[in-house]
Amino acid sequence: MSTLMTLPTPLEASVNEKSTPSWLDRVRFDDKGLLPVIAQEQETGDVLMMAWMNREALEKTAQTQRAVYFSRSRGKLWFKGEESGHVQVVHSMRLDCDADVLLLTVTQEGHSPSIACHTGRHSCFSWSLDEHHQWVATAPVLKDPEAIYASPTAHNP
Amino acid sequence: MSTLMTLPTPLEASVNEKSTPSWLDRVRFDDKGLLPVIAQEQETGDVLMMAWMNREALEKTAQTQRAVYFSRSRGKLWFKGEESGHVQVVHSMRLDCDADVLLLTVTQEGHSPSIACHTGRHSCFSWSLDEHHQWVATAPVLKDPEAIYASPTAHNP
Repeated sequence: MSTLMTLPTPLEASVNEKSTPSWLDRVRFDDKGLLPVIAQEQETGDVLMMAWMNREALEKTAQTQRAVYFSRSRGKLWFKGEESGHVQVVHSMRLDCDADVLLLTVTQEGHSPSIACHTGRHSCFSWSLDEHHQWVATAPVLKDPEAIYASPTAHNP
Repeated sequence: MSTLMTLPTPLEASVNEKSTPSWLDRVRFDDKGLLPVIAQEQETGDVLMMAWMNREALEKTAQTQRAVYFSRSRGKLWFKGEESGHVQVVHSMRLDCDADVLLLTVTQEGHSPSIACHTGRHSCFSWSLDEHHQWVATAPVLKDPEAIYASPTAHNP
């Protein structure tokens, strides 16, 4: 019997309990204390990006209803849009069956059409595997990244 | 200057090169050799699940146009639907700007309405954080998991 067949999962069990501890304790962060988080645009259904949250980022996201991630490269909280102005307003937070992945529905603010990607594209998922087995960019750059990050807001947050 | 502002990214660079090595070499697996993969239902736009692929799983997915993941708990390839019959037909594969997350668009087969989750629900993302800060199941069980995994197909693949 595979582990996939084992029920109830931790989350199934948690839902049935009456006295729950903090909602944060239900989330299963990985061995680095991080959680993969998918941002889906509410208006279009487009998957915009996947990033990571630690416990503090998740708590701040819930408090502010704005996406706050944890930047693995910078090793600190990343308030999405802090430099670019491309803030994500969070409408819902959904956890998966293993309680180790989060799905946000968001409104991507700051530009029209919306830009979630640091390359200036709508979505981070803009490279498709074509029939020749090559990754090809399939979405336009809506705004020059240098213009996005050279704004006064970027350097004087 | 944050690392987010550094361009071109590895993927940006790769797209501009004429003689590319294997498309698989462009993908940046993590330190465990794994890649997070999001499955989005083509017909509805619903995000069904997130799982992991290693290089072999990714190659097999491209070859077969059926989702093949790597089960971290079982430590081996997981041909989605091998036990449940809930196969995912893959229509497109899109890589993100850092080449370290993959987005699939799929048709979720095997049941109507479609079931992607091992709990018998449509999507794995079926627990919402409500206004009282509790995770509540917000989607019905469409088929008893015991029935899913106790089917003859499951035990005699």
